[in-house]
Amino acid sequence: MKKWLLTVAVAASFGAQADEGMWQPYQLPALADELKAKGLEIDAKSISKLTEFPMNAVISLGGCTASFVSPKGLAVTNHHCAYGSIQYNSTPEKNLLKDGFLAKSYGEELQATPGSRIYVTEAVTNVTDKVKKGLESKVGNDFYQGIEHKEKSLVAECEAEDGYRCQVYSFHGGLEYYLVKQLEIRDVRLVYNPAASVGKYGGDIDNWMWPRHTGDFSFYRGYVSKQGKPADFSKDNVPYEPKSFLKVSAKGVSDGDFVMVAGYPGRTNRYRTANEVENQFEWAYPEGKMLRERFIEIIKETAPEGSDERIKYESLIAGLANYAKNFTSMIEFYGKSTMLDDRKGRESELANWISKDSKRQQQYGKTLAELDKLIAEGQEHQARDIILGYIRYTTMVPTARKLYRLANEKQLDDMAREPGYQERDMIRFKSSMERIDRRYAASVDKAVLFDLLKRYAVLPAGERITALDKVFGIGKKLDEKKLSKTLDKMYAKTKLGEMDTRLAWLDKSVADFKASNDPFIKFAVAMYDTDMKQEKKDKELAGKLMKVRPQYMDAIIAYNTELGKPVYADANSSLRVSVGHVKGYSPQDGLQAVPFTRLEGILAKDTGVSPFDAPSKQLELIKQKQYGDFYVKSLDSVPVNFLSTLDTTGGNSGSPTLNGRAELVGLLFDGVYESIIGDWGYDPETNRSIQIDSRYMLWVMKYLDNADNLLAEMEIVH
Amino acid sequence: MKKWLLTVAVAASFGAQADEGMWQPYQLPALADELKAKGLEIDAKSISKLTEFPMNAVISLGGCTASFVSPKGLAVTNHHCAYGSIQYNSTPEKNLLKDGFLAKSYGEELQATPGSRIYVTEAVTNVTDKVKKGLESKVGNDFYQGIEHKEKSLVAECEAEDGYRCQVYSFHGGLEYYLVKQLEIRDVRLVYNPAASVGKYGGDIDNWMWPRHTGDFSFYRGYVSKQGKPADFSKDNVPYEPKSFLKVSAKGVSDGDFVMVAGYPGRTNRYRTANEVENQFEWAYPEGKMLRERFIEIIKETAPEGSDERIKYESLIAGLANYAKNFTSMIEFYGKSTMLDDRKGRESELANWISKDSKRQQQYGKTLAELDKLIAEGQEHQARDIILGYIRYTTMVPTARKLYRLANEKQLDDMAREPGYQERDMIRFKSSMERIDRRYAASVDKAVLFDLLKRYAVLPAGERITALDKVFGIGKKLDEKKLSKTLDKMYAKTKLGEMDTRLAWLDKSVADFKASNDPFIKFAVAMYDTDMKQEKKDKELAGKLMKVRPQYMDAIIAYNTELGKPVYADANSSLRVSVGHVKGYSPQDGLQAVPFTRLEGILAKDTGVSPFDAPSKQLELIKQKQYGDFYVKSLDSVPVNFLSTLDTTGGNSGSPTLNGRAELVGLLFDGVYESIIGDWGYDPETNRSIQIDSRYMLWVMKYLDNADNLLAEMEIVH
Repeated sequence: MKKWLLTVAVAASFGAQADEGMWQPYQLPALADELKAKGLEIDAKSISKLTEFPMNAVISLGGCTASFVSPKGLAVTNHHCAYGSIQYNSTPEKNLLKDGFLAKSYGEELQATPGSRIYVTEAVTNVTDKVKKGLESKVGNDFYQGIEHKEKSLVAECEAEDGYRCQVYSFHGGLEYYLVKQLEIRDVRLVYNPAASVGKYGGDIDNWMWPRHTGDFSFYRGYVSKQGKPADFSKDNVPYEPKSFLKVSAKGVSDGDFVMVAGYPGRTNRYRTANEVENQFEWAYPEGKMLRERFIEIIKETAPEGSDERIKYESLIAGLANYAKNFTSMIEFYGKSTMLDDRKGRESELANWISKDSKRQQQYGKTLAELDKLIAEGQEHQARDIILGYIRYTTMVPTARKLYRLANEKQLDDMAREPGYQERDMIRFKSSMERIDRRYAASVDKAVLFDLLKRYAVLPAGERITALDKVFGIGKKLDEKKLSKTLDKMYAKTKLGEMDTRLAWLDKSVADFKASNDPFIKFAVAMYDTDMKQEKKDKELAGKLMKVRPQYMDAIIAYNTELGKPVYADANSSLRVSVGHVKGYSPQDGLQAVPFTRLEGILAKDTGVSPFDAPSKQLELIKQKQYGDFYVKSLDSVPVNFLSTLDTTGGNSGSPTLNGRAELVGLLFDGVYESIIGDWGYDPETNRSIQIDSRYMLWVMKYLDNADNLLAEMEIVH
Repeated sequence: MKKWLLTVAVAASFGAQADEGMWQPYQLPALADELKAKGLEIDAKSISKLTEFPMNAVISLGGCTASFVSPKGLAVTNHHCAYGSIQYNSTPEKNLLKDGFLAKSYGEELQATPGSRIYVTEAVTNVTDKVKKGLESKVGNDFYQGIEHKEKSLVAECEAEDGYRCQVYSFHGGLEYYLVKQLEIRDVRLVYNPAASVGKYGGDIDNWMWPRHTGDFSFYRGYVSKQGKPADFSKDNVPYEPKSFLKVSAKGVSDGDFVMVAGYPGRTNRYRTANEVENQFEWAYPEGKMLRERFIEIIKETAPEGSDERIKYESLIAGLANYAKNFTSMIEFYGKSTMLDDRKGRESELANWISKDSKRQQQYGKTLAELDKLIAEGQEHQARDIILGYIRYTTMVPTARKLYRLANEKQLDDMAREPGYQERDMIRFKSSMERIDRRYAASVDKAVLFDLLKRYAVLPAGERITALDKVFGIGKKLDEKKLSKTLDKMYAKTKLGEMDTRLAWLDKSVADFKASNDPFIKFAVAMYDTDMKQEKKDKELAGKLMKVRPQYMDAIIAYNTELGKPVYADANSSLRVSVGHVKGYSPQDGLQAVPFTRLEGILAKDTGVSPFDAPSKQLELIKQKQYGDFYVKSLDSVPVNFLSTLDTTGGNSGSPTLNGRAELVGLLFDGVYESIIGDWGYDPETNRSIQIDSRYMLWVMKYLDNADNLLAEMEIVH
């Protein structure tokens, strides 16, 4: 019972019970009393207004969160969110990753990696009725396409205003739809990043871990045209002037203090069914972990430490490792938890509530069974699907496919095209094609693809795809040598590794593709019909789910409404607010994680070997107890990172953590290992977010990197 | 300054400063006020009296400590202290290690491993004057032999009373000598041990670690003749009735409570010179760690898991691993510490004090330089010495050497013999020869010896020993194949692997040895003159050190006396008392070790795979929250292990940890990883001993193992 209440909603016992919930801003005024009791000093209503302080200072980078911290468009986010841009600007001669980077003036600021954006949310509108209108009788693929068409229309209408990016977000699996309108700043520049030995201190070893000592922050700046409008990069552009920005606290927080975080959490699964939980933890995570770990091995073998290829793949390795560790934790804590039983328990509790009322019975009586039937259908070919899905981590195959898909989509009216292939997507599409140069090596791409095809080739006959077998010449029994030779030839011959070639394909026709001799283009052409057939099948199922899952969520919400409890939706990359407290936890019987780490912890961890190789200047400052303005007496040091109960997930990275007056007291950058499984259920005992303390950020800026120009630009609250 | 005071003595600031010190019982009355202030409820004087409660209940097992807990000679110690006896009584069919053992009556109790003893200390007499008298003018080997002769005379006189074992202990490197008289109970029986999955829970992985959940306790009983005198094993013997015994607390202790421990700590090095510290940490520990780790590898390769050989070597592997880990910690924390600088600092501080007074200058002015010169002399051949020293971990070579040495020593009067070869040593000597059967496999012995000889063979020419080279046929350059063949032949031919043969050699003459064809006997004979020459050289140096080190300690004591501080001696396996508190610590910035672990921690750690494979009955009891009589509200569970600031080291294992009323509240069984280096200097921040909580012991006895007969025999204080 307890778990069910915790997982679905905790608002009734909001103050006492837990800090669960990723709330849509519009929900906050209803929680005003609880928020005030917890420690919020500003008006809860003000947080619900997206165009006012502080929410209009919280911005999205697409995948990460950031916030404006100066009137001149200076934005702070995590080092790991700016990692691509730092890497993009690094060369062996001028290694910004290793040495850090500080622009002392606007002119020294560097273009962020192609496609970098700053999105400023300006409006969120409930468009549920508009989206669903007239689609009541549609099912399956028709329903899916109908919804998609409505979304595209709404987006097109919204984006008619220049400089905006719009998106329809589905909540509760399609129960509600919201149109989000964001100003899209296209000229983003790298302003300042500490050395990786500060910003990525602890590296993969400390990733998801506590105690933590990572200076995970970096600064971007948004630029717009002289007219104040979003514009492509130009020397003539000027810093964007946001309507408001966050003050940065030099006072910070203490154990037990109220904190809140606004950001763009990516995805949670708090309302998935027991069957989905079981399949995910007992099949999908173990399988995904195995594949990721194998890819890392293959990449490391193929691109040895110190090679040019290795530099190109560091980012992919980091991403793969990140989620291999994530999945490991998922599996570990699932094994220790009663999650599956709890889900089953809450499902029967809901069923019980439904069964007690004939109207409810009529409305929801068959919902869960129908939902589970569709879920089972989707899992039918999962052993094949996961292998083919992981091809997204290679480069040539997806590149050829995307290019050919584009040629096909271009034959349609813009509005009829698949999302991602519309005119509005072309800039991003192009930059994704440009980016490949810095992240691709044929030897590595081939090795990973080879591994996946070997796995594919041993699947049962019924799971094999004729077109695919044909292209790669995979027979009934796998001939490894032959396959390897085939791939060798394909990689030797293809020109898709060259940027000019890729960009040229952007403008070619279907006929051009069909006439091409490039082996990967030929592959894409050969697979196209099969791919489209599969996509239609997927959409048919998705369309069905988009009808049933909202029913299920509707039942859950109705049940909770009866109990007087608001329900927050699963994360979906849209703007949310979480509230909580600075608080430690017990990672293990006999151990207590205290909420703050200190500068001295860096000295103790430091081995001089990456990732525990803090700059010698920093070590010296700590040895000499040069705490400066940021000394905290109770810690007898400067706090480095801190723990909070904030309910967050990936995508929240870079989010400003705020005190009750909405001053920036930290940047959220991770969760602890025990809370990774929190994506599936928040446990108040172990769900902890990790923040870099604003005082550590300021200390690094002031004493280590002498970023006086930025400190002067920001508003520091003492 | 602070470190110096801490390390040398803290009595002046005893209450506030720290819980450092392994005090000789006679020193305690002088500390009475501080002890009372800390929480001692009984009279400090009573602890100083060895023949009264509670000290006469604290007994030695030789290497471990134990305590009487019933009027019928029932003694509790650590599971790892009784390990040899449990192993000795285990067979594949009746595996006491795996399944545990409980004698439900006297008749079911099992003989402990041969040579097991219970020593009850009855008197400790300062014999410094007696020992040194008349030796004032002697130096080097003469001084060494003179002291040894005096010691032997005192021991012989003391042991004239039947059933006693006596020993002279040197304190402060020979500044003082104490004669210790102990009743020697020779009939020791195994009464009860929990399953290894309780008693050794966490195994080598958790060894030296916190959090800890080890039920490290077992019970012995001492038997004596019907007349109440020590006697060899006999069915007619009766349980020994100690003058007093400890009550066992079912109430236990809480965070911050006073605790004290009485036991037999083995060896500390708190007063070693900077040069000794440097050599030990920068050479000896790294080298020893490498050798131990290599031996473990060799043993595991040669005796695979599950083989009969492996069972024989588990105990040696555990011992090697234990100290490999110990050395690893030593090296790690030395690297992080300022120990060497601190030592140098305190040496110059002492030098400074000496230099300020001409009398002191005359007395101590050259002491440190002389000491360091001798120390350097001892290190001259250490690269060879460590290799030859590690031969003690093999069996055949030391066995042959000891047997031949015995034949030689027997030609002398008993009093003139080397200690260890006197008549008083013969029972132990014989049982050491018997024990070999259960702990020896030729294949393993050969592999380890081969490894050592290979290391020896590559030493510089000047370090080689002619006799040794000759026996093993080691030429200028090592011929591995030839050496291996030589060893094969030796092991194939020797009969020393047979107990009867070994025992027969106990009574043979030097001529018999010289006539023998047994290859290891031949080796011992061939090496004898060289060995004796080396021993004489060693004693010459030892004799010199026995003159200089006391001078150095005298200076340290004089300096501290001037500061009003008593000084405790380095541990030397004699009876000591430490006092302290129940207290956690911070193992790492951002983490706090809390002082108690709980039953639930076992559930969380348990993987079902050794060493985390608690009995299913235990897991079930915990799942069902069957805390019974030992529930502690503040923990909402039963405490399993707890941390204290007690200053202890190896040899303290099994020591009763007592509350202020001298009731047994725990058994000391380990120290935390961070405090291993504490043998060289007590750090109040990290020096922590680990105890099994009496409440957990009682819980296991009552609810898991139903040891009702023992619980009824003991006096439990509620």
